[in-house]
Amino acid sequence: MTHYVYRFGGGVSDGGQGDKTLLGGKGANLAEMASIGLPVPPGFTISTPMCARYYEEGERFPDDVKAEVATGLAHIEQVTGHRFGDPTDPLLVSVRSGARVSMPGMMDTVLNLGLNDATVQGLAIASGDARFAWDSYRRFIQMYADVVLELDHNAFEDALEIAKEDRGFTLDTELSAADLQALVAEYKDLVQQQWGKPFPQDVHDQLWGAVGAVFGSWQSERAKVYRRLNDIPADWGTAVNVQAMVFGNMGETSATGVAFTRDPARGDRAYYGEFLINAQGEDVVAGIRTPQYLTRAAREAAGARPVSMEEAMPAVYAELAAVFDRLETHYRDMQDIEFTVEKTKLWMLQTRAGKRTAKAALKIAVDMAAEGLITREEAIARVDPAALDQLLHPTLDPNAVRDVIAKGLPASPGAASGAAVFDANTAERWAADGKAVILVRTETSPEDIHGMHAARGILTARGGMTSHAAVVARGMGRPCVSGAGSIAISAKDKVMRVGTGSSGREVREGDTLTIDGATGEVMAGEVPTVQPELSGDFGTLMEWADAVRRMKVRTNADTPNDARTAREFGAEGIGLCRTEHMFFEGSRITAVRQMILAEDEAGRRAALAKLLPEQRSDFAGIFEVMAGLPVTIRLLDPPLHEFLPHEEADFAEVARVSGIEVEALKRRAAELHEFNPMLGHRGCRLGVTYPEIYEMQARAIFEAALDVAERGEAPVPEIMIPLVATKRELELMKAVVDRAARTVFAERGREVEYLVGTMIELPRAALRAGDIAQAAEFFSFGTNDLTQTTLGVSRDDAARFLGAYVEQGIYAKDPFVSIDVEGVGELVKLAAERGRATRPGIKLGICGEHGGDPASITFCEEVGLDYVSASPYRVPIARLAAAQAALR
Amino acid sequence: MTHYVYRFGGGVSDGGQGDKTLLGGKGANLAEMASIGLPVPPGFTISTPMCARYYEEGERFPDDVKAEVATGLAHIEQVTGHRFGDPTDPLLVSVRSGARVSMPGMMDTVLNLGLNDATVQGLAIASGDARFAWDSYRRFIQMYADVVLELDHNAFEDALEIAKEDRGFTLDTELSAADLQALVAEYKDLVQQQWGKPFPQDVHDQLWGAVGAVFGSWQSERAKVYRRLNDIPADWGTAVNVQAMVFGNMGETSATGVAFTRDPARGDRAYYGEFLINAQGEDVVAGIRTPQYLTRAAREAAGARPVSMEEAMPAVYAELAAVFDRLETHYRDMQDIEFTVEKTKLWMLQTRAGKRTAKAALKIAVDMAAEGLITREEAIARVDPAALDQLLHPTLDPNAVRDVIAKGLPASPGAASGAAVFDANTAERWAADGKAVILVRTETSPEDIHGMHAARGILTARGGMTSHAAVVARGMGRPCVSGAGSIAISAKDKVMRVGTGSSGREVREGDTLTIDGATGEVMAGEVPTVQPELSGDFGTLMEWADAVRRMKVRTNADTPNDARTAREFGAEGIGLCRTEHMFFEGSRITAVRQMILAEDEAGRRAALAKLLPEQRSDFAGIFEVMAGLPVTIRLLDPPLHEFLPHEEADFAEVARVSGIEVEALKRRAAELHEFNPMLGHRGCRLGVTYPEIYEMQARAIFEAALDVAERGEAPVPEIMIPLVATKRELELMKAVVDRAARTVFAERGREVEYLVGTMIELPRAALRAGDIAQAAEFFSFGTNDLTQTTLGVSRDDAARFLGAYVEQGIYAKDPFVSIDVEGVGELVKLAAERGRATRPGIKLGICGEHGGDPASITFCEEVGLDYVSASPYRVPIARLAAAQAALR
Repeated sequence: MTHYVYRFGGGVSDGGQGDKTLLGGKGANLAEMASIGLPVPPGFTISTPMCARYYEEGERFPDDVKAEVATGLAHIEQVTGHRFGDPTDPLLVSVRSGARVSMPGMMDTVLNLGLNDATVQGLAIASGDARFAWDSYRRFIQMYADVVLELDHNAFEDALEIAKEDRGFTLDTELSAADLQALVAEYKDLVQQQWGKPFPQDVHDQLWGAVGAVFGSWQSERAKVYRRLNDIPADWGTAVNVQAMVFGNMGETSATGVAFTRDPARGDRAYYGEFLINAQGEDVVAGIRTPQYLTRAAREAAGARPVSMEEAMPAVYAELAAVFDRLETHYRDMQDIEFTVEKTKLWMLQTRAGKRTAKAALKIAVDMAAEGLITREEAIARVDPAALDQLLHPTLDPNAVRDVIAKGLPASPGAASGAAVFDANTAERWAADGKAVILVRTETSPEDIHGMHAARGILTARGGMTSHAAVVARGMGRPCVSGAGSIAISAKDKVMRVGTGSSGREVREGDTLTIDGATGEVMAGEVPTVQPELSGDFGTLMEWADAVRRMKVRTNADTPNDARTAREFGAEGIGLCRTEHMFFEGSRITAVRQMILAEDEAGRRAALAKLLPEQRSDFAGIFEVMAGLPVTIRLLDPPLHEFLPHEEADFAEVARVSGIEVEALKRRAAELHEFNPMLGHRGCRLGVTYPEIYEMQARAIFEAALDVAERGEAPVPEIMIPLVATKRELELMKAVVDRAARTVFAERGREVEYLVGTMIELPRAALRAGDIAQAAEFFSFGTNDLTQTTLGVSRDDAARFLGAYVEQGIYAKDPFVSIDVEGVGELVKLAAERGRATRPGIKLGICGEHGGDPASITFCEEVGLDYVSASPYRVPIARLAAAQAALR
Repeated sequence: MTHYVYRFGGGVSDGGQGDKTLLGGKGANLAEMASIGLPVPPGFTISTPMCARYYEEGERFPDDVKAEVATGLAHIEQVTGHRFGDPTDPLLVSVRSGARVSMPGMMDTVLNLGLNDATVQGLAIASGDARFAWDSYRRFIQMYADVVLELDHNAFEDALEIAKEDRGFTLDTELSAADLQALVAEYKDLVQQQWGKPFPQDVHDQLWGAVGAVFGSWQSERAKVYRRLNDIPADWGTAVNVQAMVFGNMGETSATGVAFTRDPARGDRAYYGEFLINAQGEDVVAGIRTPQYLTRAAREAAGARPVSMEEAMPAVYAELAAVFDRLETHYRDMQDIEFTVEKTKLWMLQTRAGKRTAKAALKIAVDMAAEGLITREEAIARVDPAALDQLLHPTLDPNAVRDVIAKGLPASPGAASGAAVFDANTAERWAADGKAVILVRTETSPEDIHGMHAARGILTARGGMTSHAAVVARGMGRPCVSGAGSIAISAKDKVMRVGTGSSGREVREGDTLTIDGATGEVMAGEVPTVQPELSGDFGTLMEWADAVRRMKVRTNADTPNDARTAREFGAEGIGLCRTEHMFFEGSRITAVRQMILAEDEAGRRAALAKLLPEQRSDFAGIFEVMAGLPVTIRLLDPPLHEFLPHEEADFAEVARVSGIEVEALKRRAAELHEFNPMLGHRGCRLGVTYPEIYEMQARAIFEAALDVAERGEAPVPEIMIPLVATKRELELMKAVVDRAARTVFAERGREVEYLVGTMIELPRAALRAGDIAQAAEFFSFGTNDLTQTTLGVSRDDAARFLGAYVEQGIYAKDPFVSIDVEGVGELVKLAAERGRATRPGIKLGICGEHGGDPASITFCEEVGLDYVSASPYRVPIARLAAAQAALR
């Protein structure tokens, strides 16, 4: 039979550090501390499986659990010598939630449970302190009413304030035992009024109420939102910890405090924390009294007056400091600790790995490795790769005032301010005049690329984390907030509106906006930003990571600038160079449109001839940056209609610039219109129907490669055919590329090494990878499109339901952010196996957005890919994640 | 070493009937006839692998092949006693192509090869007939120039005409040897002029030229087009048959003819054919002289004068009739025969299974089984299921004049005439007034359903064989021509235009149009149609088929009418009842729009309440028709924006009718707009976000089922959740359905049996079928969407490249018509295996368009599905195909 209750304290430990899944973080660590002999008040943990069972049983507790809890209580009674509900010398307990990871939004803590009208008297006598007893009862009712009964806490606070005012007091401590007793009576009346029932006097009812409230809070809206934002599965559940109370509020030799064993903000090796004399835990965080520093050094550094714990309670402090060191050595990590001193006796209430900033994480990991506390490998594992993002982008000054007017998705990290502009051309023009601009669009399309490049940041009203705007912005390293649904944008009127009626706000062209791509916040006006500083620790950790990782890390880059940024961040080649953006720049788009409008192959060839020198110089620029490294170039991929204007107003302008008639443009645009462009005439389907396009691109690649090779080190072009579903498509396109290579090599009398391969981005390609590998020298998994087709979800349209899907546990995470291992992953695995069976040495990589996602990188390591490719700013993340994956 | 030359005749047969793949149909059958002792002129076949090799070798013949051909020639020389190129007594040969299946568009025949300026003299002497010799030479040059040298044949015909006119002749036979000799000289000049080289005098050059032309014609445009239209793989290649000439033009005791052993049009058991005395093969088909009947009965039935062969050449006729019987008995099938009589000696030149109409195929199969010539199983296998389509729909009177103005895809069979209308509302209104209408749209959408239903036929300018128009029309049994690209339609101006300038045609609203859904032809004016008559043979064969098939056959039907049609055609339940079309009818669309525009769940529920009674009566109507049978109902599938107007002009109208403001409609339509609706917020994603929709539908289903059960036999609703990709989605939706069932059953105090299952139509669903089967009681493979997602091809947009794809051999057939066995098929197979591993008895069916495609049905049998579901008019096809598949 499953059992649910695990004891700790008083020389007993049913669990330990390794039982976080079962006991939650708090419970496991309490058991662990008890087992290594630290002073932990006795208690027990109701394990996490009970959370699910609680819901299965219709939010009731079955008898077997009740019996186990009784055993747990008996344990506490036996160790403390107090009895629960004993009117002469009562046992009081705390009840705390404790999931596998710390989780705001959950019911936190009820203290002093076990007090009622009878036991309060017993406590007064046993402690010899009536005031303490009534204050504890007052606190208990207030806390229980708030977190368990969920009554309005203002009424209780008001009553406390009035009680003080009536008596002319300012501090709670001025209230006498009698005052508090009167307040307790008032509190009980408030409970009766609001709850409709009297405050529970049965201590067991109190206990089960609190335990039920902990489990109930697992399904609270706030908890659900937190889980969704933090990728915590709903089925983990929470544990409940019931523990004997110890009191930091029993006079001047009592105290309570929280501490970190190192500085969690900067990572320095110094105890860091706060404490309050004669207080209970909630007083420290409530902010009613100002807590005091733990160490003298910290007090002096802050120039503060109130004595530090080191000065006020030197003996207990020394004991505490020894515990800090003991815990760091034991857990081999920086700890976040809660403690209470009851009449000079130190009690440990919690320890856990301390949350820290990315900066601190780096420093602590590198320092601990230097101290010999952990190995380099452990140091690598200690830093969350995703958190590195914080270090690489400018961030908003945390102290600045923010006028937040809307919130969208944190689509590309970093913060930026600038003048709002509503079209790409204005963005480019204003930027050329030296203005900082934020490009604001309902959604972006490839036509907007030049404006996105010119802008400091991008804001869209539509689109998810992997919308066009988000993907391109991340690639460019531009901050982006996407899918800010509450914003209505009129590009025509050059205005965006948030909200309606009198509370609505308008932002017009030229008004200053600030966006925070790390939080999704959109702010009116300028908010100052802070530039990142990359410490030596960063370089050190990256070096260690590079030494252990097996997979190479490449970058997705379409321009020499991006390529350069990526190389500085350590990219070892390009995994995806998209060519379509090149087709939009300057005068090229006119040639592209002429090609699209051409009546026949000859007409298309004439237009392509104009593009050839431009493409050649595009590639030469990138090859120079990546000399000696592989550069994977994807031949033209998007459907041709993306290159034609979309909006009525644009046709005339395009007609004027290009010299093509409006009617012809419109007719062709209508002809090319597609219902589902994602599944349309794109990728190698363009190459099959218009081989001259790929021929031109291949020629440009080989000519550029030879140009660069003549000046220095040759690049290794890896020419990638997109959207292949059959071997035959690849054979046909490979023939076009090989022919171009033979021709150019013959013309120039010189050769470069090159490969021809394909994206695996359709389920059929994955299934037929065995065939396709006969023609492919490499596979690059295009997991963006593979996710779209495998799941049948358009990433541009998914925003409408994907939130609800993640909330309802249908997908654990957004599958466009973190690869769907069960579905898409099986296809990747199968394609890798089948590809290798045909061509054992076939080079395998990933170039979807997943290439920069740590969880997906772990999967890539498991499948044994040769490299991952990430956008430039995610290259360090990928390096670290690849190292962690290799270590696992 | 591969050898390429296979001899026949003169007691030798290197091949036989079984070697069609190697020798082509003609070559295999010549060898077979020779081997059973029929009189076949000696010859040899160059096998089909030589065709591919010919292209590999750069359209040249390698030495080993030349040596083999020399051996083949020696065989003919040895048997006939004539020598090739012998100026005194030359051997003449015919050269004919012969692929696995007969293929128009290929080079057909060169006769009399081996004649030149020298051998013609020898032939004159050896045959004792100078006129015959020169006529043969004349014919040879003309034929060679046409089919081998591809010169303009008109010049040759003109020269012949002039030669006759100059001499005052009307018949070729009036020309003398000298006249013909002069004509030969003229012909040779024509060759020199047009070809730039003299007519080849070397008989071996002649032979290799002809053989090369046969291989060359395999890649001719006409051959490619034919292959594409008839699903013949390009890699089959053709064989070449070289055979000693026999002459039907050696006077009155010579003749040539073609015959069928039974009537190929009606199937009657009577010899059927034509012959000409003193003629060569091409004269029979050329239509210059009117051929005579073979049998006296046929002559008399036609009231024709020229004597039949039975009368003119009774002895040879008797011999021929014996051969007919011998061949039918030997091949156990109706034969299509070519023969020549050379001076009373009968020679067999060809036999093959005769092409026949669907009607004849049925009759012949049933008759032959009755005669004991074949088994019932063979009779079943003899009828091409796809050909049954011809029998089930009205067809155009073959004798009527047609003014064809455009051609599209044969999207749904049958022919129809009516007044052209350009919108669904007019179609409905006019049809209500009793007018026959053809609905003409650029493309159709679910909004057009009522108009499509009201129309006699549907014509669209856009969309493929599986476009919305095509699928819906087939489901309704309406003829449809889709994707008639040369038509430009303006719905606003109510006009369609074909062509431009003065040759352009206009069809305005009300003008009569005729469409032939079997050929794709669009005709101006009315063309009379012929109603189909279903013979007793049809019923007999269907009965036999039903006795042997394993798979059940259901239908895709959304209305009681369709369901009734399908039951009459033998459907054993409904495999797919789509519910979205029900949402468009009458006042319902207003309620649907109110639901879409509702601000909250309460508003949606209020609108859904209006739909409930309508949905209930929809289902009740269908359940009554299908009483006692399973009815699979798919809950709402399309994205909600499909229910809102799309065109500017429609918004005002909809606003007026629905009482919803235009602005609100537009805003919501814009909000709901999707880039890729196929991959958007549809299917169970609607059910997950708005469970009240599925709840209403489930309630309507259960209420209707109980209503019908109370009156008679209960249906078995199989409730199908669309677009599932994860087990969790299905669990959530199954919970909604089960809850509705419990509620309705409790309200009514009665239950009906029902199942809940899912479509497998996404690659992820196929991969996770093992999980999903935990929640699913059945799987129905939605191979339309599964093909779209697996291949990454939108069927609405595929027309632009799919043609080129099939032509270039990328897909052997349109994957939306016949399932892509290698890709989509692997997923179906895998899902069936994984589903069964979890739930051994899980019911498996297919409801995509493939369920009515014989090749796909064969695949379904191989995978072991329990049923296929086809549109009503394809139910008989599916029954027959399922039987054939079971027999294989």
